Amino acid sequence: MMIDWMAAFAPRMREAKPSAIRELLKLLDRPGTISFAGGIPDPALFPRDEIAATSRRILAEQGAIALQYAPSEGYAPLRDHIAASLAAHGVAGTRDNILITSGAQQALDFVGRLFLSPGDEVLVARPTYLGALQAFNAHGPVFGPLPGSGSNRAALGSGAGGGESGRARFGYVVADFQNPTGECLTLPERQALVANAAAMRLPLVEDAAYDQLRYDGDGLPSLLAIGAARAGGIDAAGIIQCGTFSKTIAPGLRIGWIAAPRPVIERLVVVKQASDLHASTLNQMIVHEVASTIGPAHLERIRETYRARRDAMLAALDRHFPDGARWTRPQGGMFVWVSLPERLDAEDLLPLALAARVAFVPGRSFHPDDSGRNTLRLNFSLNDEDVIAEGIGRLGAVMRQALAG
Amino acid sequence: MMIDWMAAFAPRMREAKPSAIRELLKLLDRPGTISFAGGIPDPALFPRDEIAATSRRILAEQGAIALQYAPSEGYAPLRDHIAASLAAHGVAGTRDNILITSGAQQALDFVGRLFLSPGDEVLVARPTYLGALQAFNAHGPVFGPLPGSGSNRAALGSGAGGGESGRARFGYVVADFQNPTGECLTLPERQALVANAAAMRLPLVEDAAYDQLRYDGDGLPSLLAIGAARAGGIDAAGIIQCGTFSKTIAPGLRIGWIAAPRPVIERLVVVKQASDLHASTLNQMIVHEVASTIGPAHLERIRETYRARRDAMLAALDRHFPDGARWTRPQGGMFVWVSLPERLDAEDLLPLALAARVAFVPGRSFHPDDSGRNTLRLNFSLNDEDVIAEGIGRLGAVMRQALAG
Repeated sequence: MMIDWMAAFAPRMREAKPSAIRELLKLLDRPGTISFAGGIPDPALFPRDEIAATSRRILAEQGAIALQYAPSEGYAPLRDHIAASLAAHGVAGTRDNILITSGAQQALDFVGRLFLSPGDEVLVARPTYLGALQAFNAHGPVFGPLPGSGSNRAALGSGAGGGESGRARFGYVVADFQNPTGECLTLPERQALVANAAAMRLPLVEDAAYDQLRYDGDGLPSLLAIGAARAGGIDAAGIIQCGTFSKTIAPGLRIGWIAAPRPVIERLVVVKQASDLHASTLNQMIVHEVASTIGPAHLERIRETYRARRDAMLAALDRHFPDGARWTRPQGGMFVWVSLPERLDAEDLLPLALAARVAFVPGRSFHPDDSGRNTLRLNFSLNDEDVIAEGIGRLGAVMRQALAG
Repeated sequence: MMIDWMAAFAPRMREAKPSAIRELLKLLDRPGTISFAGGIPDPALFPRDEIAATSRRILAEQGAIALQYAPSEGYAPLRDHIAASLAAHGVAGTRDNILITSGAQQALDFVGRLFLSPGDEVLVARPTYLGALQAFNAHGPVFGPLPGSGSNRAALGSGAGGGESGRARFGYVVADFQNPTGECLTLPERQALVANAAAMRLPLVEDAAYDQLRYDGDGLPSLLAIGAARAGGIDAAGIIQCGTFSKTIAPGLRIGWIAAPRPVIERLVVVKQASDLHASTLNQMIVHEVASTIGPAHLERIRETYRARRDAMLAALDRHFPDGARWTRPQGGMFVWVSLPERLDAEDLLPLALAARVAFVPGRSFHPDDSGRNTLRLNFSLNDEDVIAEGIGRLGAVMRQALAG
């Protein structure tokens, strides 16, 4: 007399399926396939010697702390380090404004837990980060548009008034080098977004996963910095910023953070405790040491490497992609976003591309409304310049064939 | 124009407060206080040299894997290791029956996410693990009794029929050395529980956090082993087992697991991906190496140490505690559970105990219905025998004073 598991699951969980991306990524391990699919840092850039040396020293000198249970808020010196980094960018706050999470994905999940009930609305750009859609989806929302956000253009028109449903709980924004488009909001766009959200008393969730990865041009103030300056401090601003060390140190350590007004952090600490008690103590201590010592120099090395790869990808796209395809020219991040002629569907192209041993992510996954069928995302951080040129050449040939067919 | 955060939070989150235990534990850092409060392993038993050597080797030989993103299911060799351990205890399964979690607390949270909608019922023993109550509470359930569970006696009377509400989703059971009582279910109790749950088609969630920590007597089959034998395999059994390396290697690494029928694991992988992508890759690899090499010998060392401490605590209780107090005599685990004369309230005693520089956890926190005011939990794993004798002496004096007052 077996249990009918599908009936036993909570109703909202019965629908949950592995994402198409997840299934896709399983196909990519085939030898010889050039993958532009993942949002994956180059492992050759992981500071593994520094991590090994730091880990050895921490275990020798503070092993009883590093291997023990720890406070749910996170390791105090790491919280201080993040607060100091924010202060250096004009956001005065303390460790009480910081919660350490198990990567930025957990930060997004916690935001969903804290704000969302089934039927609530989240305002997002289209396209937007699919991991955020997954994290929020677990809490049963509908997705409304951030007005004017056709390609991460997020203006929150002043008449928006709580989204289309009147149940908007927050707006989700990647202001810097958005996943998937690679684009940034301009300074006037940021200012208008923060001002309009404040007028609506709508919290903004800023995903700052890529803001350290700028290769050209001047940095722009974060939404958090604009909001804190406007409101007179982080505690009065309606901005919740999610960050991560996955792109600047290593994703396998799973260390991220949330910077937010204290009432939000206090509640999220309770969520963290009930969820998994705390992030790995050892890993928090490693990240604190590595970020405090080699951080800036290591970041410069990452930027130089990825800048050259971005340039190689843009050059190869100019050379190999057919007329009628358009793409972004990002100043940072990890991705280029391609729009194909309307009659092409990126999901139809994918099997042809895999047959030609090159992979990408079709753009539909980044649209909560299933639009964007003629779009796709290309990652340039994982492969070196020669491999990028070869892969884009293969993909260009597939596209020309599809257009001719 | 600030945001009213309390109004912005999802309704169920407005109530969430840091647990009383959490507040209590902040008081315990005072120098000279002997703490029997936490459920904390002795850090002197952490295999820190082995962890340091293993970490160094992994980073040198497999750093590109250890620091990179990884599958949500977990590190395959660790999943195989856990499946092999289960097979050695009569539960044949494969890695597809195993999900790696960020500690057993996350396993409990995921079970709550998967099965619970607000108003659903969870059947629990009284008292039961307060971290489980916290994890499940995030999903809005009511708690019903596991019939006959006055002191972890869980019989699930055959007339129970879906709990008192008819909305019972699962029963939660710590069969071995329960937190907080230290007691085990007998073999007939286990068999009756599994049989009755199967007849009701009610999933059982078995928290096996302590099952490796047996100091006397013969081990009993787990609920999972009984269920798998009865149903003809893990996939046909209605049992979901949560385990952890926190007690046998180190909690700071945050590595636990769920062993369950494949349809449950498949769905939980989706939950894991949306929650935090995956557990720390490096830490999973460390745990796999350490558990596979020094595991059994190290476990024997832990058992010897904690056995002596358990004996020291029972001897001190016999010597120092007043007539009318009763306590469990556990064959393993980390805790002794004390019942005081009815007229004493452990929460009233706590300030007196803290003034005498000794700490414990009042028993009410382990009761979803706020009962158990005359009970308290004592941990014996953290302190050595002399400290235990001294601390129980202090606590006995406080009780005698309270009884005299």
